[in-house]
Amino acid sequence: MLAARLNGVACQDEHALSVQDRGLAYGDGVFETMLLRAGEIRFVADHLQRLRLGCERLGIDPPSKQTLLGELAIVAKSYRDGVVKMIVTRGATARGYRAARDLQPTHLTLLFPAVTDDNRMLTVRWCNTRLARNAQLAGIKHLNRLEQVLARNEWQDNAIDEGLMMDTEGEVVCATAANLFAVLDQVLVTPDLRFCGVRGIVRQQILAAAAQLGVAVEERALWPDELAAASELFVSNAIRGIRSIAALGDQHWRGGPIADTLRTRLRL
Amino acid sequence: MLAARLNGVACQDEHALSVQDRGLAYGDGVFETMLLRAGEIRFVADHLQRLRLGCERLGIDPPSKQTLLGELAIVAKSYRDGVVKMIVTRGATARGYRAARDLQPTHLTLLFPAVTDDNRMLTVRWCNTRLARNAQLAGIKHLNRLEQVLARNEWQDNAIDEGLMMDTEGEVVCATAANLFAVLDQVLVTPDLRFCGVRGIVRQQILAAAAQLGVAVEERALWPDELAAASELFVSNAIRGIRSIAALGDQHWRGGPIADTLRTRLRL
Repeated sequence: MLAARLNGVACQDEHALSVQDRGLAYGDGVFETMLLRAGEIRFVADHLQRLRLGCERLGIDPPSKQTLLGELAIVAKSYRDGVVKMIVTRGATARGYRAARDLQPTHLTLLFPAVTDDNRMLTVRWCNTRLARNAQLAGIKHLNRLEQVLARNEWQDNAIDEGLMMDTEGEVVCATAANLFAVLDQVLVTPDLRFCGVRGIVRQQILAAAAQLGVAVEERALWPDELAAASELFVSNAIRGIRSIAALGDQHWRGGPIADTLRTRLRL
Repeated sequence: MLAARLNGVACQDEHALSVQDRGLAYGDGVFETMLLRAGEIRFVADHLQRLRLGCERLGIDPPSKQTLLGELAIVAKSYRDGVVKMIVTRGATARGYRAARDLQPTHLTLLFPAVTDDNRMLTVRWCNTRLARNAQLAGIKHLNRLEQVLARNEWQDNAIDEGLMMDTEGEVVCATAANLFAVLDQVLVTPDLRFCGVRGIVRQQILAAAAQLGVAVEERALWPDELAAASELFVSNAIRGIRSIAALGDQHWRGGPIADTLRTRLRL
């Protein structure tokens, strides 16, 4: 970690969070992971909007957009490139699920080194860990991420880049840390995330860009046995952009023309 | 909060947790809430066993039983009565769901004031927030508790003591911070928690004590429309023990003989 700011103040010591913070106690908050490149945070308005939507869903009154933009500007100015993680929690309280309405939320900005990335195609696997279905928590990037943690820790083999996840009913939802797209009969299909999964910022950008490019797009339920028929498969997130999939078990793909076009279009 | 100990050291300042702790980042850990009464932590062996089981399920290597007992002994000696909350997380790491195998877990012991309790019967309501189903996370007391937070914050009316929760398929699971029991045709029924909910320490004590008392017990799927036929309804947790329910919506109960017997038997 290169830098940390807690509630508007630079942390001299990373041991700075209240042991009573509800982010720790219950995962009672949301986060964003953003790409800082050449002094600019990509899609910053979209990230802050999703963060605000997540807070609304959870009944958290987040710091103002100006406050959060100010925090981001400070790290963006000091470090031109990196990965910025912003966490907003409901704040610190004594124990108990009940939260006072006037609680002061916690906001935390962490800066990590930039990832070195090469756009090579990925090898992925299926995860055994399933995602539970709860429409009330679907789409937002909340801090309850045990399923992703368990899924990502199913393998240690560095030859496997990512894992695809199904929900408890067997629908395909996403990768552990990315959204998933499949090209099926010339249509760009991505899971609709009505029960679980995160509405990725780059996912939204891809859907808009594909429509502009005249590519048919569908957000719908996607099932594992459909993937074998895909002419192209790729994943997306805010840090690594768009990455084509080369292999999933014994299925293989060569290149990804739609992914390539989208990557160029979105400057990812 | 009366006291906090982090990784074996008394916190001089409650702002002591690493901002990179995975408990904050992902809810990547477990907790226990224990009753300290007259210098003794009730059911301490059961609590530490559940904590260990939860860690096993999550692939966390927890501190030794001796270490955790030592932490509890220190707070129990200094404060004779109170509520002790113990949190164990996978530890602090840079961002990313993947966790190194040799990570040092975090353990945190918090002491809160004792609750004043009067054993009066409770008024409860139904919560709109549902519990998602995921057998992989069911039963253990992990830190992903957003559903309970949302459920408990559905009401502010102090006349309502607790809220009952269903899962996404409509089965009754628990109260926001307690297990639920219903006496149906002389049988003590409690949800089996196969998909969600926490296997409460007092719940397990109740099941054992009821069997010893010759009360038939059943752990099974319980549906909301069954509750109207219950001769008695009660909730249990480690802090407030066993509490009979007087009202749920327009349904009312007077007294709870089985709850009273169990409370006496278990010295709750």
